[in-house]
Amino acid sequence: MSNRTEISTLGEFGLIRHLTDRIEIKNNSTIKGVGDDAAILSYEDRQVLVTTDLLLEGIHFDLTYVPLKHLGYKSAVVNFSDIYAMNGQPKQITVSLGISKRFSVEDVEDFYAGLKLACDVYGVDIVGGDTSASLTGLCISITCIGEGERDKVVLRSGAQETDLICVSGDLGAAYMGLQLLEREKRIFKGEKDFTPDFTGKEYLLERQLKPEARKDIIEMLRHAGIIPTAMMDISDGLSSELLHISKESNVGCRVYEDRIPIDYQTAAMAEQFNMNLVTAALNGGEDYELLFTVPLTDHDKVSEMKGVKVIGHITKPDLGNYLVGRDGGEVELKAQGWNSLEE
Amino acid sequence: MSNRTEISTLGEFGLIRHLTDRIEIKNNSTIKGVGDDAAILSYEDRQVLVTTDLLLEGIHFDLTYVPLKHLGYKSAVVNFSDIYAMNGQPKQITVSLGISKRFSVEDVEDFYAGLKLACDVYGVDIVGGDTSASLTGLCISITCIGEGERDKVVLRSGAQETDLICVSGDLGAAYMGLQLLEREKRIFKGEKDFTPDFTGKEYLLERQLKPEARKDIIEMLRHAGIIPTAMMDISDGLSSELLHISKESNVGCRVYEDRIPIDYQTAAMAEQFNMNLVTAALNGGEDYELLFTVPLTDHDKVSEMKGVKVIGHITKPDLGNYLVGRDGGEVELKAQGWNSLEE
Repeated sequence: MSNRTEISTLGEFGLIRHLTDRIEIKNNSTIKGVGDDAAILSYEDRQVLVTTDLLLEGIHFDLTYVPLKHLGYKSAVVNFSDIYAMNGQPKQITVSLGISKRFSVEDVEDFYAGLKLACDVYGVDIVGGDTSASLTGLCISITCIGEGERDKVVLRSGAQETDLICVSGDLGAAYMGLQLLEREKRIFKGEKDFTPDFTGKEYLLERQLKPEARKDIIEMLRHAGIIPTAMMDISDGLSSELLHISKESNVGCRVYEDRIPIDYQTAAMAEQFNMNLVTAALNGGEDYELLFTVPLTDHDKVSEMKGVKVIGHITKPDLGNYLVGRDGGEVELKAQGWNSLEE
Repeated sequence: MSNRTEISTLGEFGLIRHLTDRIEIKNNSTIKGVGDDAAILSYEDRQVLVTTDLLLEGIHFDLTYVPLKHLGYKSAVVNFSDIYAMNGQPKQITVSLGISKRFSVEDVEDFYAGLKLACDVYGVDIVGGDTSASLTGLCISITCIGEGERDKVVLRSGAQETDLICVSGDLGAAYMGLQLLEREKRIFKGEKDFTPDFTGKEYLLERQLKPEARKDIIEMLRHAGIIPTAMMDISDGLSSELLHISKESNVGCRVYEDRIPIDYQTAAMAEQFNMNLVTAALNGGEDYELLFTVPLTDHDKVSEMKGVKVIGHITKPDLGNYLVGRDGGEVELKAQGWNSLEE
């Protein structure tokens, strides 16, 4: 059995020190990290990008099947993803935790181990935060600061008529992973000695539990000399994100069902669950892939990029936002993405 | 009776739009605010200061007696205070809210009204955030970004032997305000028609419910040509903060009981509650005053500054940290400050 150290034995300052005292600074832009009223950063001629995410137990994650180390990793990565989606590089994060008595020092260490691993993989410094008691459950708030080159930061609002719409990776797998975990949880509740069999579904679980941000795609775009006209990450589902780009850029879009990248494990799981595969890929959420638009003249360049697929094109705004089916029929895109404030 | 609009009628994106669609940008350093994957800031030759605070219902605030508008104001101000404590200027905040079903759109509007008022008063832009459901209560996470002039940012670690120790304003009033509100809450619970009488205690309530950050002191220091050797804001109580400066600067300190600034309402309330006044002033917390050290040669300058009091001096580290009483006796300073992870 593992040790359990009560957080009260360390206290707030003790816990922060314990978690952050061996943090090494990796970036030149980090002048002063944890330990004062504020962190000090220096961005000189770069632009400063700031994004923040709040993750609440019972709303955004279920600790029945999410290991704390994975949760730490994912909490950091989803913020990095937002910075990459601006064509930037994440450089620093601050981490605030609200922790109920249910959690031990070892639990918080596990969470931090995942957080630090993600920061090592992506070259990001932990520069501050706040730790507090919570009456119920775990509350995680992460702010990520990143840098962007002047004139190379990409907004959602720059898509132009005839631009190509591209996505990285594949879609719907994280959603299927969630469905799988939720099903096993229900089965598990009935049977004490039940051991779930995830053979052949590893990819779905990995996409749900340990997603990666597409730093590699940003690097490939840079090497190829492509600056997307608009970009965002896919966290709430492709449909919802396409509508954001259309609205912010004042354009319309056509995407093609047969162009949407889907992994075979996702397809197999959808069949097993008797779910509509395209719906899962369009509205599933938590993919953390990049959705971006490039000028038609970049067609050959993006076509050669590994892990990037052209799925459609930008139109005039009055042509609306449609999915073109395999049979040529058109279905209007709707934002049915995951939304924590609706039910 | 006031209207109640359920948050679910707007949804997450609707709520964010509703709260942020008329936000005017005040600072040149804010290139792009709410509405993309990240905010874009430009700090050029200035240093970027980042601080964050997590406020949880039932731990950090009690909505029985804290109006939501005041809570919004205070949530912003406590973050600004951390930036001033670096000798910087707050410029942007991101705001993440976790909101349970108990709250209506109007409630969140009240919170935002206070938040926006604070941002107007202090010249700060709201540049992003996140809004989500919460299973229990209200969860507030605010990150503040500020600017500091290179070589003029002040850490906790620069205090030198013989430096003067200064504080702004007066101490202990916010803590007494909290005691007062807690007492009225207990009385109120017994009697339905009880109306609390706060006459003569307005200052204590204001200090607790609507604190201000000491932007004025930072400006006075600049005008006087003083750069403190060390500085922090007093959020956990004077004792606790003095020990931080001593530890980070590797020095000791002597502060004098009869020099500690205390308002007469604080003193009257302590007597009424039969509490030790100096203990309240040393350990009360939530004062949001500035504690700073200056070279002895700045003695005349700081002595002339309105609202600033010299309370002691920095010593060699082996002389320890002591409060010198009115009778000349010395008591070692201990960090008995408010700590949300201890009991």
